[in-house]
Amino acid sequence: MFIAFEGIDGCGKSTLLENLALKLSSASRSYVKTREPGGSSLGSLIRTELLSLKRTLTPQSELLLFLADRSQHVLELIRPGLAQNKVVLCDRYIASTLAYQRNSSGLSPDKLKELNQWATGELEPDLYIYIDLSAEQAQRRRAQMENDRMEAKGLAFQKEVRQHYLDLAQEKNWLSLDGQLSPTELCDQAWSHIQSMLP
Amino acid sequence: MFIAFEGIDGCGKSTLLENLALKLSSASRSYVKTREPGGSSLGSLIRTELLSLKRTLTPQSELLLFLADRSQHVLELIRPGLAQNKVVLCDRYIASTLAYQRNSSGLSPDKLKELNQWATGELEPDLYIYIDLSAEQAQRRRAQMENDRMEAKGLAFQKEVRQHYLDLAQEKNWLSLDGQLSPTELCDQAWSHIQSMLP
Repeated sequence: MFIAFEGIDGCGKSTLLENLALKLSSASRSYVKTREPGGSSLGSLIRTELLSLKRTLTPQSELLLFLADRSQHVLELIRPGLAQNKVVLCDRYIASTLAYQRNSSGLSPDKLKELNQWATGELEPDLYIYIDLSAEQAQRRRAQMENDRMEAKGLAFQKEVRQHYLDLAQEKNWLSLDGQLSPTELCDQAWSHIQSMLP
Repeated sequence: MFIAFEGIDGCGKSTLLENLALKLSSASRSYVKTREPGGSSLGSLIRTELLSLKRTLTPQSELLLFLADRSQHVLELIRPGLAQNKVVLCDRYIASTLAYQRNSSGLSPDKLKELNQWATGELEPDLYIYIDLSAEQAQRRRAQMENDRMEAKGLAFQKEVRQHYLDLAQEKNWLSLDGQLSPTELCDQAWSHIQSMLP
């Protein structure tokens, strides 16, 4: 089972991923925790380039690097994890590109999807868990943290990204959660949904 | 004026590029010498990854990394050079992708072109200079050199790439030269063609 975690920065998805990993452990389910960008052998290198504030990237190379990392990540980590019957917990996947690069890339949503399908050999998650939070609330939570290149794009950009997420979350393999809930409540809701899907 | 140099490894294009740079100097024309992959600030990093024999890349991420480098290269070096009225001499450009990744990428030639146009903001060279040489002859010339990842793909692959080049060279902005000529003869033929195009 392949689960991807999505939402704007500060929504709480990394915490939820960690808490669900504990639930899986308690239930004696083996799992892999990973993230994008950065999960592949290319990824740590690409992550540094992609998120560095020092780098001026073209919108095209930004997208291309995210996709290169994703393609390697699927090959090296996600598919092998699934082949070993592990639950793969992935912090960000295709939907992040559809939400974050939709406007800047100059490609239509359909082209973006097509490119992602090509890059991943058409591997879709069984479930996207989306934590919805307003850009303002997310910003307040992140007030003490240093911004990376995506986060430094500001509030208007985060609002736009959230709106793209809300559109995407209409699709059938999405579970939307309210980011204002406590970490425990978020985990309970997600866990009960996952349990209903686990074989 | 933007000139790209193309051909299989060992055909003599790097030598020709150097010799033409000397001609331009003698004619008091300013120029930029550059290459792909590797000409951009991302490029040296990507070049190492792309050509390393240690790295297992998916065909998709190979293509995506080449395109990311190209997109940055156009932004950082090629367009600024052209804006300063310099002659840009570039060792490999879009045609290399169309020749080398055509079979492996799993994309049609039209899709590959479209992706390149998107990545470069539709910047085409004014002239492609192609040096044609058989894969066997190129291999003999390179016998003493260490192979990179592309070269290590072997003779059958180089033959395939040459055939793609021969197809591409039918297009109107291509000058095809016979790789069996001496470096001086190659340079004279290319230089007389370039002179006829220079303003």
